[in-house]
Amino acid sequence: MWQQPTSLFTDHYELTMLQASLHSGTAHRPSVFEAFARRLPDGRRYGVVAGTGRILEGIKHFRFSPAQLGFLASTRVVDQLTLDYLADFSFSGNIYGYAEGEIYFPNSPVLIVESTFAEACVLETFILSVLNHDSAIASAASRMIAAAGTRPCIEMGSRRTQEESAVAAARAALIAGFDSTSNLEAGMRYGLKTVGTAAHSFMLLHDSERAAFEAQVASLGADTTLLVDTYDVETGVRTAVEAAGPELGAVRLDSGDLVEQARWVRTLLDDLGNENTHIVVTSDLDEYAIGALASAPVDAYGVGTSLVTGSGAPTASMVYKLVSRQNDAGEFIDVAKAAENKVSIGGRKFALRRLNERGRATTEVIGIGEPPASDGNDRTLLHHFVADGVLAPGWIGAEGVARATQRHKDSIAEMPGMARRLQRGEPVIPTEFTHGR
Amino acid sequence: MWQQPTSLFTDHYELTMLQASLHSGTAHRPSVFEAFARRLPDGRRYGVVAGTGRILEGIKHFRFSPAQLGFLASTRVVDQLTLDYLADFSFSGNIYGYAEGEIYFPNSPVLIVESTFAEACVLETFILSVLNHDSAIASAASRMIAAAGTRPCIEMGSRRTQEESAVAAARAALIAGFDSTSNLEAGMRYGLKTVGTAAHSFMLLHDSERAAFEAQVASLGADTTLLVDTYDVETGVRTAVEAAGPELGAVRLDSGDLVEQARWVRTLLDDLGNENTHIVVTSDLDEYAIGALASAPVDAYGVGTSLVTGSGAPTASMVYKLVSRQNDAGEFIDVAKAAENKVSIGGRKFALRRLNERGRATTEVIGIGEPPASDGNDRTLLHHFVADGVLAPGWIGAEGVARATQRHKDSIAEMPGMARRLQRGEPVIPTEFTHGR
Repeated sequence: MWQQPTSLFTDHYELTMLQASLHSGTAHRPSVFEAFARRLPDGRRYGVVAGTGRILEGIKHFRFSPAQLGFLASTRVVDQLTLDYLADFSFSGNIYGYAEGEIYFPNSPVLIVESTFAEACVLETFILSVLNHDSAIASAASRMIAAAGTRPCIEMGSRRTQEESAVAAARAALIAGFDSTSNLEAGMRYGLKTVGTAAHSFMLLHDSERAAFEAQVASLGADTTLLVDTYDVETGVRTAVEAAGPELGAVRLDSGDLVEQARWVRTLLDDLGNENTHIVVTSDLDEYAIGALASAPVDAYGVGTSLVTGSGAPTASMVYKLVSRQNDAGEFIDVAKAAENKVSIGGRKFALRRLNERGRATTEVIGIGEPPASDGNDRTLLHHFVADGVLAPGWIGAEGVARATQRHKDSIAEMPGMARRLQRGEPVIPTEFTHGR
Repeated sequence: MWQQPTSLFTDHYELTMLQASLHSGTAHRPSVFEAFARRLPDGRRYGVVAGTGRILEGIKHFRFSPAQLGFLASTRVVDQLTLDYLADFSFSGNIYGYAEGEIYFPNSPVLIVESTFAEACVLETFILSVLNHDSAIASAASRMIAAAGTRPCIEMGSRRTQEESAVAAARAALIAGFDSTSNLEAGMRYGLKTVGTAAHSFMLLHDSERAAFEAQVASLGADTTLLVDTYDVETGVRTAVEAAGPELGAVRLDSGDLVEQARWVRTLLDDLGNENTHIVVTSDLDEYAIGALASAPVDAYGVGTSLVTGSGAPTASMVYKLVSRQNDAGEFIDVAKAAENKVSIGGRKFALRRLNERGRATTEVIGIGEPPASDGNDRTLLHHFVADGVLAPGWIGAEGVARATQRHKDSIAEMPGMARRLQRGEPVIPTEFTHGR
């Protein structure tokens, strides 16, 4: 995945803190850091954890090679003592967290890093970059999937986000239930299904719409998707059916009033004998537009901009806080900042999802200092991803994505039905803290 | 920059279009593609072009190695004829465009690719990914710089966007006038100034605020920036001055009512004899919050989330359209889609910025088919970046960023003063088309 070290995807201050703590003798204090969101984006009912597999993969490559060390030395970001520490850096602690694809709520301890202060501190920026981006996309994608019902959604937003974000967004979208992506790099890295046929430029390249359709069918087969709105939609549909015959896979509509168009295009296709030809729509869709198309005879949705920008919430706003650390006597002390508008809760967290007798989620229970008491009807949420620096199997790569997709499906099925509604509201289940000590 | 080929940062359909056009004999038709924005984000007065240097760098690496070709073959994205074409791919055409850092308006021809259809088509997704992201960030950053006046802005949003987007965002922010970034990878790749001191976790790591301040000063010097809002701000400021003395560089405020706090913290610092100690504020700032702090005694702004998410406009909405291509007779034909809600204007574009006698911009003049007539008081906007596949010097790497930063400064200075206001409105100068033919 990463051909180069991930170690400089890091804020300058992580390394100056490291340096100062190496000098003050606090760098190696055993510490607990926690990634969580204080709140969900305005009106959202739940969030979706994504990026964990990328974080775990990236931590394997979180090393400081001569190029990185040379840069840090020549720019005097840190001193020689710190450079020596970084030259040997390899994460040796423990990481726990929610499975990728899992649903989360305000204060859910999505990722917990237990190590020396030094090791946990330098990972901060990288962990948050991945979690905040990927979870924002997965959270938006999950709502689109809910709005789409049984109709497949196709991720096609690559051009509307940074090129590497596009790969991560495709991955997050498929975790949340998207059927496929247009992004080839994502296909190669994570074994995702990729799809695509043709754009308006292909229509305009040819001397006529008919010539373009015939060229496409000759190359991609009659079951391809023909884009019928370059000139006149009705003519486009008739020409498409003439070019591809009854086996035409689909027509794509990318502009205009999609609800109205889909209705008469469906009728026209049926009248022409193309009952099996699908209608794909792709024009600036978000979860609300998808919802509005529920009654229209549409077979698939292509989603771009609104997906890769998190549909109004492009970052998940997760933070990564020191919540507990040892003192010189070797005792763990819970710590938290006391600011007026940014309340954090100190202490190592544990989490379970309480379910009722029908298996529906009722409460997110977070234990502070020790695991909450289980009542039998619940599910433990924290997994042990990294044990003393060793990554547990199954969480990264294509396997990690496949498992995360299943996890998301299962977690959504467990939620109250209200979770699948688009209306703004409170988190669909409340978060409850229990104090073990 | 890119250790691996950029060629699969590409939508699946670019390659199926390539395949179909190779078979239909249209793949090698000389073509002109144009990247432009139909409109600016709602209420914005101008946009800022960014990403051009990254695109030009990336096109050098736009090659299909055995890994890419193997993926495309095994997944049957394209056939053998197309794989053979891609194996030899190297862009051999011409690229023109606005200099990076330049201001743009609706329909400004920001990037023009002249080549065969095949070569221009496969670059589409990559070009748009970079332009749309980087321009969105630079456009937001430029408004923040306008709001900040002479006070420096520091980019610190890495944790709120994908890890590679963070690097690109830092680069775009510095082009738009940000003083420095927290992102170390961006510092290494582009020679940018990086800054950083310490976070709340460093305060909480130590047994007291005083111990933390003393450790930081011992390691980073008295002219460091101390974070004073972990516990009580007034106590924090007093302790900071005691720990660092009169040479204390700055205190940082990261929560609460910043306007009110900045005023009394300034008074307190002055009373303690620290007239030269600066105040840095960093709590969820956007251009409006920066504007609201104009009258407060603040010396620098640290900006995170709102910068890297484009302050409400996370993508620049640029599109990349085929506007002209040859027919079999070797004549160039202007082409454009005829959809109701997505008007495009066919034809190769040229552009100049008309200036009045005082050197202020008055009009964006776009010539269709041939350059607009010059009245002497104007500036040509298109540069010839790539000539027959050969990249002109000076546009990429650290040199490219430095030139783009200067270009942006010069272009802003040329704009009517209205451009620097934050109020929503129309583009600050109108776009005018001239038809040469």
